[in-house]
Amino acid sequence: MISPRAPGFTGSRIDRADALRLDEERIAALLGHLEARLLRLETLDPVLGEDGRLAWDSMAGLGDGAESLFLGLDGDAPLFAPLARMAPITGHARSVFPLLDRMDSGDAALWAAARSLIEWHNRHGFCSVCGSPSEIFRAGWARRCLSCAAEHFPRVDPVVIMLAEHDGRVLVGRGLAYPPGRYSALAGFVEPGESIEEAVARELFEEAGVRAKSVRYVASQPWPFPGSLMIACIAETESDALTLDRTELEDAMWIDRAGIEAALTGAAEAPFQAPPHFAIANTLLARWLAG
Amino acid sequence: MISPRAPGFTGSRIDRADALRLDEERIAALLGHLEARLLRLETLDPVLGEDGRLAWDSMAGLGDGAESLFLGLDGDAPLFAPLARMAPITGHARSVFPLLDRMDSGDAALWAAARSLIEWHNRHGFCSVCGSPSEIFRAGWARRCLSCAAEHFPRVDPVVIMLAEHDGRVLVGRGLAYPPGRYSALAGFVEPGESIEEAVARELFEEAGVRAKSVRYVASQPWPFPGSLMIACIAETESDALTLDRTELEDAMWIDRAGIEAALTGAAEAPFQAPPHFAIANTLLARWLAG
Repeated sequence: MISPRAPGFTGSRIDRADALRLDEERIAALLGHLEARLLRLETLDPVLGEDGRLAWDSMAGLGDGAESLFLGLDGDAPLFAPLARMAPITGHARSVFPLLDRMDSGDAALWAAARSLIEWHNRHGFCSVCGSPSEIFRAGWARRCLSCAAEHFPRVDPVVIMLAEHDGRVLVGRGLAYPPGRYSALAGFVEPGESIEEAVARELFEEAGVRAKSVRYVASQPWPFPGSLMIACIAETESDALTLDRTELEDAMWIDRAGIEAALTGAAEAPFQAPPHFAIANTLLARWLAG
Repeated sequence: MISPRAPGFTGSRIDRADALRLDEERIAALLGHLEARLLRLETLDPVLGEDGRLAWDSMAGLGDGAESLFLGLDGDAPLFAPLARMAPITGHARSVFPLLDRMDSGDAALWAAARSLIEWHNRHGFCSVCGSPSEIFRAGWARRCLSCAAEHFPRVDPVVIMLAEHDGRVLVGRGLAYPPGRYSALAGFVEPGESIEEAVARELFEEAGVRAKSVRYVASQPWPFPGSLMIACIAETESDALTLDRTELEDAMWIDRAGIEAALTGAAEAPFQAPPHFAIANTLLARWLAG
């Protein structure tokens, strides 16, 4: 039996202390705090210590004039991440997946917030309203235009990820760039002017040609590639007849309970390779199996 | 007895036909289609006909060289909205609330998508990566930088909106700019690196000092001021002792079932004035009451 765990990238135990972000004097004092720590990163990936936990440096690691992001308070200790400008990273940066495999979910959540914010800063050095350079604001949780003073806040892009369900089976699909054998839940961005439930129905019809009769919410998690909020749902469909959008999916198939259990346990006879435990598709499959 | 209706701004019956957006020839043909219609707007507000439905113009209303946004297909008829540049609108633009009061929810949904996109274009004329001007792309559903070719997609900002629940009562609060007598569910933006459930718990603690024991999802809807995805939840709390953040809330109070029913029916003895039916806080209160 599979026991569903909490979704990946959740369970950070730090206090985001957002009320402090606008207080520049207080943030300056926290930067000089004896217990202040700086998240160690290689490009955007975390570095793990021998205990498998996130590695941290003293604030001396930041370098003169370098900017930082206030992640929050771990007890009394203020936590920061470096905000070095770098070229935008494209794609999922799968180099980090082996690390995530063995990271504590709370550590992964803390790193995820830092990664999403750093990448957002890297793609938002200029004001979208007037085109002028912008500066870091709110201790790294916003930017402000140096010319028109427009304030810009980090993006969080809601994505629906869903299992179509029909007659005791669920639908898994293969994206065009998936590793060999991998199938997962279908997914897509929520668009302006639609609800979660409408986005689920639209995506299932667009990608697989199945009509949703009902949609139920299951769970959510952040996904820091670069900054999505994954919203996992199960949708009962009218039929199991598929019409695949081949620009999105290489294949899709309906799998029964035994097949999902085999995939989640990594059994030799599994009909597909399940997504990793830190992806909410894994949580979604496990929750469906658990009923 | 209150019977909860579907959330506001949902139930649009048009086909967004997103597969056509990248096909410039097809979009040009749709612009010239005999049945093509242009959404009539006053600034960003809809115009209603005598039947209370959205008013539409022929495409001649667009004017030479003016740009448009492809909303989708209503049967065979392609629907567009004008993309005139205008000064960004700030605040909720409550002028539209009396119209929304009598609009069909599907019409409101269609208009909401247009409003969100138009306002997004108005605030995103420049590339955030390099500061150069950008152009409309994907029939209005994206922008592309004329210099670095970076693609930019409309923002959809997820917001959690929640009722704290304790001992048969729920918590409603008064924001600083609410109309007289109005109370509603507490709400806040989901931040990078947190789940829906974590955002609910953080916001309830920050704004009202109550700790969530469990969070359950209830419903969602878009909110086009300017582009939020409202995610409505109920959170059981450990206690009902409040510590209000007075920078966010003028007041908050716990209300029992009779009080919520009185508010939703607009009874004279109601302890507060309920939010309008097109706000998901209304749906959330009605769903809680319905059990």
